[in-house]
Amino acid sequence: MKLTVRDIFEKKSELIENDIEIMAWVKNLRDSKNIVFIELSDGTCFKPIQIVVDKELENFEEVRKFNLYTGIRVFGKLVETKGAKQPIEIQAKEVELLADSLSDYPLQKKRHTFEYLRTMEHLRARTNTFNAVFRVRSLLSFAIHKFFNERGFLYIHTPIITGSDAEGAGEMFQVTTLDIENPPKNEDGKVDYTKDFFNKRTHLTVSGQLQGEAYSLSHRNIYTFGPTFRSENSNTARHAAEFWMMEPEISFADLHDNIALCEDMFKYIISYVLENAKDEMKFFDSFIEKGIIKRLEDVISKDFKVMTYTEAVEILKQSKEKFDYPVEWGIDLQTEHERYISEKVVNGPVFIIDYPKEIKAFYMRENDDHKTVAAMDLLVPGVGEIVGGSQREERLDILEKKIKDNHMKIEDYKWYLELRKYGGVKHAGYGLGFERMVMYLTGMKNIRDVIPFPRTVNSCDF
Amino acid sequence: MKLTVRDIFEKKSELIENDIEIMAWVKNLRDSKNIVFIELSDGTCFKPIQIVVDKELENFEEVRKFNLYTGIRVFGKLVETKGAKQPIEIQAKEVELLADSLSDYPLQKKRHTFEYLRTMEHLRARTNTFNAVFRVRSLLSFAIHKFFNERGFLYIHTPIITGSDAEGAGEMFQVTTLDIENPPKNEDGKVDYTKDFFNKRTHLTVSGQLQGEAYSLSHRNIYTFGPTFRSENSNTARHAAEFWMMEPEISFADLHDNIALCEDMFKYIISYVLENAKDEMKFFDSFIEKGIIKRLEDVISKDFKVMTYTEAVEILKQSKEKFDYPVEWGIDLQTEHERYISEKVVNGPVFIIDYPKEIKAFYMRENDDHKTVAAMDLLVPGVGEIVGGSQREERLDILEKKIKDNHMKIEDYKWYLELRKYGGVKHAGYGLGFERMVMYLTGMKNIRDVIPFPRTVNSCDF
Repeated sequence: MKLTVRDIFEKKSELIENDIEIMAWVKNLRDSKNIVFIELSDGTCFKPIQIVVDKELENFEEVRKFNLYTGIRVFGKLVETKGAKQPIEIQAKEVELLADSLSDYPLQKKRHTFEYLRTMEHLRARTNTFNAVFRVRSLLSFAIHKFFNERGFLYIHTPIITGSDAEGAGEMFQVTTLDIENPPKNEDGKVDYTKDFFNKRTHLTVSGQLQGEAYSLSHRNIYTFGPTFRSENSNTARHAAEFWMMEPEISFADLHDNIALCEDMFKYIISYVLENAKDEMKFFDSFIEKGIIKRLEDVISKDFKVMTYTEAVEILKQSKEKFDYPVEWGIDLQTEHERYISEKVVNGPVFIIDYPKEIKAFYMRENDDHKTVAAMDLLVPGVGEIVGGSQREERLDILEKKIKDNHMKIEDYKWYLELRKYGGVKHAGYGLGFERMVMYLTGMKNIRDVIPFPRTVNSCDF
Repeated sequence: MKLTVRDIFEKKSELIENDIEIMAWVKNLRDSKNIVFIELSDGTCFKPIQIVVDKELENFEEVRKFNLYTGIRVFGKLVETKGAKQPIEIQAKEVELLADSLSDYPLQKKRHTFEYLRTMEHLRARTNTFNAVFRVRSLLSFAIHKFFNERGFLYIHTPIITGSDAEGAGEMFQVTTLDIENPPKNEDGKVDYTKDFFNKRTHLTVSGQLQGEAYSLSHRNIYTFGPTFRSENSNTARHAAEFWMMEPEISFADLHDNIALCEDMFKYIISYVLENAKDEMKFFDSFIEKGIIKRLEDVISKDFKVMTYTEAVEILKQSKEKFDYPVEWGIDLQTEHERYISEKVVNGPVFIIDYPKEIKAFYMRENDDHKTVAAMDLLVPGVGEIVGGSQREERLDILEKKIKDNHMKIEDYKWYLELRKYGGVKHAGYGLGFERMVMYLTGMKNIRDVIPFPRTVNSCDF
């Protein structure tokens, strides 16, 4: 197998003093008169490997003129460099040009703003910041799969295209094969959707939860993890039109089982990233958000608190804090409220439970007070809400009434209601916005900077 | 933690002779006069656990009337049953009704056709076959992630919505927020896409490969794994409008590195499923496709052969076999040809490489003969092609010419061409249609039966 730069650092004790071959890109090049130092990177780890090229080398003059991001092959001896900044380097015996890089390469040494880098989404992953962000994104994905696999949860691919346009979680994109210039019409002069690909109007999903419930009621413990969509015209640093959601669903389980699972998962995935992305996390701590490692370590060392919505509202009302949005029982908590609770009151992660039923989705289980539902939001310092979930309404009559009260069509939910007719045991679940979690772990402040090719209002390039 | 049925089988040596509690569904119920036997399942494993309810039990009369798929809680002693069909059973001391199941439950004991079960996608996962299919699907997903994670590959989420409508891999769905009843028009009377959500026409992706290449040229070894779409009007057992694709991409690598990776991965994921889904694979072997375990074990024990397209065509021409499609150099191989090669000639998996450039995609690397490209298809017995891939054209001038020759717009590929300007080293990759692989592993013959909620022509329910 070919060596990667990661391999060299991981296996350095067995490779040291040996001749090795590495193919990678010139990330930096310092040219003294008689010697050239190359920082060589292949993107497999955060650190580059230093190459030392002596003027004795046959093609020394060629090497010193390499542009940034030239692809090269280096053959040479791996040696320890006691006292130097980098622990090891390669003394080059051969340097071969593999792929040229033109001199107008846009990522020159100077630092670029994230905004500028967004104009070159195909190249920005080559910078330190984005190299680290996308490694953390990948590790976080794997941590999620590993956590659930170890607990016997099934990964279910819920559909992206949906025939329901009323899941109530947000505005939706339409999916069609009709010719919009000249769509077929029916007798009433309306667009004839029986001619569309699926014989009906279809949209992009906003959540896999309802379908996930069907599989929770067959396989007990499942999770979904896939892209979801919102067509809201929100041009903010926290909204993307396309993003990934992770939604577990557990049967024979109530809200407290759900809270326990969420706390376990949250700690597990943070620990996994801290453990497996040490260099990247140090970089974020130094250059993106000071103190982020400490903040995350604090989170995983604490027992998460649980507080009812009613208690939270009381605390907010009695606080001396001046909020932009006034607090009354019945309001949806704003980020300022959520952060106050988790930062000033609890000083750590906290689940808020039992929200007023009017501000929560139709499928959440009504509590015995008939005023609240068995919902839970996880609030964390620095962010506010990061997870939302609930126990699901398993009682057929109450669920039917909720659907009608919300002016949704019963026939659209026939299958969902049937899940309650046949062994519809208590079940619960939650959703984690994956990009929000990547932002939380890296300190990155704009969702556009944690998605490889972000899709936002007016922006769908590359 | 609550016990699952899987836990009981896995931890039976420590649980035996102890009182345990289990919550699950009634999968089967045999009522003798003085005793009731319940097969209890919670979907966490293929096997049910047997519950024995004696007439001494207080609510014996209630228990014997349970409908199929009633959710119950059982408390009782786990005992060994020497000589019986099942190795262990629970002698019930308490049976509690958790969730009723109505008597019109549609999945009664008799066997149903897969076609009938497709009319109830929300319930069919409760049957033996679909319980097993979706566990294998989940395990296969995890095997893919595990394989690539162990090798340091980054998982990249490539975008679902794309601004390019010319990737050349198939017909595409349009994504829009325009009001199709009354779309905005520009001065020419055409639909004004500057008013659409992304300020342009957008579609659902057919492949993440091109974007994957950008990340291979930053992080070296990456893979994508996500939903892809085709709007072809193909109402066959092998076509779905929405399906998952897995596409690795490796840099500093040529076709032979690609072949080696693909063979490693293919064997790894099959081994993982054989190892982790023993009961399910036995079921498929008995009831879905006789001999499937042996066929898969054969595949992982063999070195995969490599043959050029030109050699394959020669062999096919010289064979005595009567093909529906005549063979000439230049044709696209049909399934009958692929199966003949892998079943009759090689008797095992075989990579066919170096296909005529006219029948392959524009991005595949042209060979020195100027007639073929460095493509590879993996053919397996029983199926034919299961993986397709290639080395990518890294030479700017040749790639530009290919784009023009294919009547594609250079400006749409500006970013893709730039990847070749700046350190565009040799790279390669392949794609595995995930559902095809699930079908291959389970013996299921219709793609609708390996997708939780399939989307096909005229069908987008649930």
